[in-house]
Amino acid sequence: MKLMPGGRAASLFAALHFTVGCLGSTPSSLLSATKTTPADLNYPSGTPFPGDYGGQYRPQVHYSAPQNFMSDPNGIFRDASGTWHLYYQYNPLGLSFGNQHWGHATSKDLYHWASQPIALGPPNRHTTALFSGSTVVDRNNTSGLFPNQDNGVVSVFTLAGRDPDGGFGGPQVQSLAYSHDGGFNFQFYEHNPVINSTSNQFRDPRVMAYKDHWVMVIAYSRDFTIGIYTSPNLLDWTHASNFSLHGLLGAQWECPNLIQMPYIDEECHRQDDVWTLFVNINPGGPLGGAVVQYFPGSFNGTHFKPVDSAARTVDSGKDYYAMQFFNNIGPGTEVEYPVSIAWASNWQYTQLVPTGQEGWRSSMSLPRRHYMTKIKGVGWKLVSQPYNLERVMGDTLAVQKNVTKEVVAVEFSGVKSNAVFWEVNITGIPERALRSLSLNVSFVSPSTTESVRLAYVFGGVDFDLYGGDTPFSLDRGGAKGFDHRFFTHRFSVSSPHDDGTWSASGVLDRSLLEVFIHGGIETVTSTFFTQEPVAVVLFSLSPDLPKGLSVDLRVVGLNSAWDNQASHDGLVYGNRTIKG
Amino acid sequence: MKLMPGGRAASLFAALHFTVGCLGSTPSSLLSATKTTPADLNYPSGTPFPGDYGGQYRPQVHYSAPQNFMSDPNGIFRDASGTWHLYYQYNPLGLSFGNQHWGHATSKDLYHWASQPIALGPPNRHTTALFSGSTVVDRNNTSGLFPNQDNGVVSVFTLAGRDPDGGFGGPQVQSLAYSHDGGFNFQFYEHNPVINSTSNQFRDPRVMAYKDHWVMVIAYSRDFTIGIYTSPNLLDWTHASNFSLHGLLGAQWECPNLIQMPYIDEECHRQDDVWTLFVNINPGGPLGGAVVQYFPGSFNGTHFKPVDSAARTVDSGKDYYAMQFFNNIGPGTEVEYPVSIAWASNWQYTQLVPTGQEGWRSSMSLPRRHYMTKIKGVGWKLVSQPYNLERVMGDTLAVQKNVTKEVVAVEFSGVKSNAVFWEVNITGIPERALRSLSLNVSFVSPSTTESVRLAYVFGGVDFDLYGGDTPFSLDRGGAKGFDHRFFTHRFSVSSPHDDGTWSASGVLDRSLLEVFIHGGIETVTSTFFTQEPVAVVLFSLSPDLPKGLSVDLRVVGLNSAWDNQASHDGLVYGNRTIKG
Repeated sequence: MKLMPGGRAASLFAALHFTVGCLGSTPSSLLSATKTTPADLNYPSGTPFPGDYGGQYRPQVHYSAPQNFMSDPNGIFRDASGTWHLYYQYNPLGLSFGNQHWGHATSKDLYHWASQPIALGPPNRHTTALFSGSTVVDRNNTSGLFPNQDNGVVSVFTLAGRDPDGGFGGPQVQSLAYSHDGGFNFQFYEHNPVINSTSNQFRDPRVMAYKDHWVMVIAYSRDFTIGIYTSPNLLDWTHASNFSLHGLLGAQWECPNLIQMPYIDEECHRQDDVWTLFVNINPGGPLGGAVVQYFPGSFNGTHFKPVDSAARTVDSGKDYYAMQFFNNIGPGTEVEYPVSIAWASNWQYTQLVPTGQEGWRSSMSLPRRHYMTKIKGVGWKLVSQPYNLERVMGDTLAVQKNVTKEVVAVEFSGVKSNAVFWEVNITGIPERALRSLSLNVSFVSPSTTESVRLAYVFGGVDFDLYGGDTPFSLDRGGAKGFDHRFFTHRFSVSSPHDDGTWSASGVLDRSLLEVFIHGGIETVTSTFFTQEPVAVVLFSLSPDLPKGLSVDLRVVGLNSAWDNQASHDGLVYGNRTIKG
Repeated sequence: MKLMPGGRAASLFAALHFTVGCLGSTPSSLLSATKTTPADLNYPSGTPFPGDYGGQYRPQVHYSAPQNFMSDPNGIFRDASGTWHLYYQYNPLGLSFGNQHWGHATSKDLYHWASQPIALGPPNRHTTALFSGSTVVDRNNTSGLFPNQDNGVVSVFTLAGRDPDGGFGGPQVQSLAYSHDGGFNFQFYEHNPVINSTSNQFRDPRVMAYKDHWVMVIAYSRDFTIGIYTSPNLLDWTHASNFSLHGLLGAQWECPNLIQMPYIDEECHRQDDVWTLFVNINPGGPLGGAVVQYFPGSFNGTHFKPVDSAARTVDSGKDYYAMQFFNNIGPGTEVEYPVSIAWASNWQYTQLVPTGQEGWRSSMSLPRRHYMTKIKGVGWKLVSQPYNLERVMGDTLAVQKNVTKEVVAVEFSGVKSNAVFWEVNITGIPERALRSLSLNVSFVSPSTTESVRLAYVFGGVDFDLYGGDTPFSLDRGGAKGFDHRFFTHRFSVSSPHDDGTWSASGVLDRSLLEVFIHGGIETVTSTFFTQEPVAVVLFSLSPDLPKGLSVDLRVVGLNSAWDNQASHDGLVYGNRTIKG
C-alpha cells in the first residue's frame, strides 16, 4: 500500500481537532429518549463535518462524505421543492465500519452537494446500530404524525441489536423516525419497532407509495428472500408475500428496491412500465464481495412476479453496491425516469483503501437515470446513464471525427478537477471480419506510467480469438497506489456491437472510473488508486481498419462540484444553518 | 508472454514430421461417404498422434491431447468392460481452434490414458465442423444398427455448417455416427441429420437412457433455452419441452447435461436422487468467458422442473468449462456417483497460452465425482471431489498435526512429476473472534519467487474487515510466464466454516491448480504459467491463534500418469493397435 503524502491530510486533522474542540461535548438537552442524536458520541451536533476535498483521490463530481467512513446510500428521496436528499450509512468516529448513523447531504442537481448535519443516530451505539432503510413523504398524513403538514418525512430503517463484544447478533427490527422540517431533524417514533423480529438477518426496508397504500420490500438476508409488506399508515405493517431464491444468491441478500421502471422497446417506443426488483448481494458476488442484480416483472400491490428466472446484474465492475433509487420520482412524477445512486466500493477492501490517508473512505457512484429495454439476443436489459452530467461539464479538450491516426493522446493536466468525461463512437463495424480489431482507451499517470486500461475487441469471425465474444475489458492493475488480494484487477463483459455500431463513454474522477457501454446497456464501475495523478488519456486503434469503419471521440474536462464550496482554509463546511 | 525454451518442442515437431511422412497421404479407401475420417487432411489415420509429455507446463495427472489444440470433452462414456472413453473437440492441424474433430483416449482409472486414433472427423472440414455431442451404448439395439451386438456405440453430435470465408454461419444439425467396435471406429448414419435445423445456434446434444426411451438435452444457444427431445430408437426424435431463461444467461448457452444425481443430506443420509441440469455458458460468464451453472430439480422423462430459480455455479475460477458427465454410470449402475470431466481453460485466452511452445494447448480437469447436498444457510450445493486420486498418489512429503509454527515450507523439487496433492484441515474455529485470522498457502518457484497464492480468512466478528465474509481467494498474478488482459489474476468465493471446521485440498500439476474447499462444496480451478517450475509450498498462519484452534496439513507427491508411457525417444505414442 502506497501511503499518501501527509500534507493535506495533516492539515485536515488539525482543522477537525479544532472544530470538535469548539463544540465541546454534546449538550444534555439531546439526551431525550426520542432524540435521534446519541448522547455519548463526541462529534459535532447540528453542524456538518467539514471536509477537505482537495486530496489526490477525492472525487470531484461524485459525493463523498466530508470525512470518516461512508457506505450504503439509504433513505434517499426528492422533496416537493426539487431538493435531492442523500442519506448514507456513516461512521462519524472513524475510517472503517462501525457506529452506524445516517449521514445527510442535499443537492439541487445531484452533483453539487451541501453536507448536512447527521440526520439519524442509534439510540445507543453500544447496543444498537442504525442500518439502512428508506424515506418517504407522508403527503396525506396517513401516519397521523403530521397534523398540519403535507411535507412530513418518515424514515423506516433497521435498528440492529449489538452484542457486548461488538458483534451484530441482533435482533434486527424495523423502526421509524419522522421529521417535521423536511428531513433534517428527526425523532424516533414512540411505538417502535413497527415490525418486530428476533432474527439478525432481517433488514433494509424500502418503502414506497402504491396506489392507496404503502409497500415495503425488505431482505430476509440469509434466506435469500425479499419480504413484501403493506401498510395503510406507515405504522402498522402486514406481511403480504415473499420472493425467494431467484438469480444469484451469494452469501446474503440486502437492500432490495422495487421500482416502477419505464420500458422503451428496441424501436424506441415507450411501452407499459415494468416493475423491477433490485437485490443487492454481499458477500458472495461472482467477482468477490458485492453485486447488484435485478428482476424485471410485474407488481399488483402485494405480489411481485418476475418475467423469467434469469439472473441479470447491473454493473460488471467490483465497486458498485447498495444501489438505491430516490423516492418520490419515477413515472407520473416530475422526474419521469428513476434515478439511483450506489456505493462505489466493495467490502472486500473498502476499509483498507488509501483514501484513508486523506481522512475519508468511499464515494458514491454518479447519479444514474434508468429505463428498461430489450436487446436483440439478450432480452431484458436495464439501461443506466449519468443523470444530467452537463451540470459539471467544462471545456472540451478534444473532438475528433473519423479518427485516422492509430493513437490519439489527450493531455488534461490543466483541468483543475483532474476529472474528465470521454466518449468513443464506432460505426461501420463489419458483420464479419477475419481479423479481430481492437480499440484501447488508457488513462495514464505521465510521471509513473501507471495506467487504467479499457479495451474493446470487435469484428472477427465467430469462434475467433475470443471464442465468438466481443468483450469489453477494464484493467486497473497498472495503478500502483494500492494492492490487496481481493483488489481484483481485470474485469470484462460481453458487449456485442449493434448494426455495426458500438460506443462507450465514461467519467474518470481521480480514483473512480465509471464506464457506460453503448448507451448504458452495460456499465463497469471501478475504483483505482495511482501513486501519481492520471493526466493523459490515450486512444489507440488496431491498424488497417476495414473500409467504412469510423471512430469518433471526444474528451471534456469536468468542473469540480466541490472546489467553489471551499473556504479560505481549503475546507468545505457544508450547511451550518440547520440546527437540531 | 514468456516463450518457452525451444528444445523439447523442436524435437517433438521433428518426430511428428517423420510420423506424418511415414503414413503418407490418406488411402483412397477412406473416401467413402460414410467414413468418418476426412479425406483431405494430412494427419495420421488409424494411429494416435505421439506426444511429448515432458514439457514444463504439461500436466502429469490430467489428460491433455498429445499435441495441437484440444477443447471440450464430449461424448464421454464408460463401457461395459469398465473402460472410460474420453472424446474431445480437437484440431489435429494446429494450436488454435479449427477443423473440429473428435479426439479420443481411453483409461481404466481416469488418470492413465491411452491416446487413441481420432474417432470422428467432419465429412468435409471446409464446409462442416464436428462440434460437441454425446455417446451412448445401444445395449438393446433400439436403433437397429447393431443386429448382433449388445455393445453398439452411438454418438450424436452437431454438424456445424461453415461459410466459404471460414465462419460458422450454420446450419447446425444433429447427426449420428455409430461404431461396431466399442467406440474406436465410427461410420456416419446414412439418413443424417436426425434433427434438422436452419439455425446456427442449436448444438451440443447430450443423450441418455431414461426408462423406456432416450432423452436428449440440447442448447438453443442464443435463445438461452435447453430443448428436451425424446426418441425410442436414437434415430427419430420428438421435441418434448423447453427450459428457458433460468439463472445466468451470459451471451450463449452450450453443452447441457441432465444428470440423475445422488442426494446426501446435511446429516449424511442418502435421500431420493435429484435430477440436475447443467448449463455451460460462454462467452458472458461473470468472470469473463466461461462459467458452468446447475439447476437441481425433478425430471419426468419429458420435462425438467428446477427446485427454485436460483443461479448456482460449479467452480469459482476461470478455467472450468464444458463440464461433461460420463454416460452409462450413475445411480443404479456399477459406478454409483456421477463422474465428470471439464475443459480446464477459457476461450478468452486459451489460444494464446504458452503451452503452445510445447506443441499442445489445453488440459482437461481432474475427473470429479459428484453428489448433491444442502448446506446450512445456502441450500442446494453440488459437491465435487477428485475421483479416486489414490491411483496417482505417491510419497508423502509432509504430515503435520496441530501445526504450531507460523510457517511450514514443503519443498518438492525431488518429485519427478512436479505435481503434488495438498490438504489443510482446521478445527476449533471460534464462532466469534474479534480479530480476523488467516491461512495462506503459496506455491512458489524458488529461483524466481513467482507464486500462486491461496488464502482463507476465518473468524472475526460479523462486518469485520471483509464485511462479514469468510472468503477463500486464489491469486495467480505472481506467475510471470504469461500475461493478457483477460487473464484475470484474482478469484474469491465465500466459504463459511462449518461447526468450527474448515478444510481445503487440491492438486497442483505444473500449470493447473484445482482446489476443493471443505470437502468439495466449492471448487476453484485455475491455470497458471510460471517462468520456472513451482517447487515449494508454503503454509503460513496468522500469529496468536485462538486456543483450541488446530491446523493439520499434508503434502503428497503425485506419480506421473505419462512418464512410464514414454518411449526411449521421450514420446508417448498411445494405442497404435487399433486400425480403421
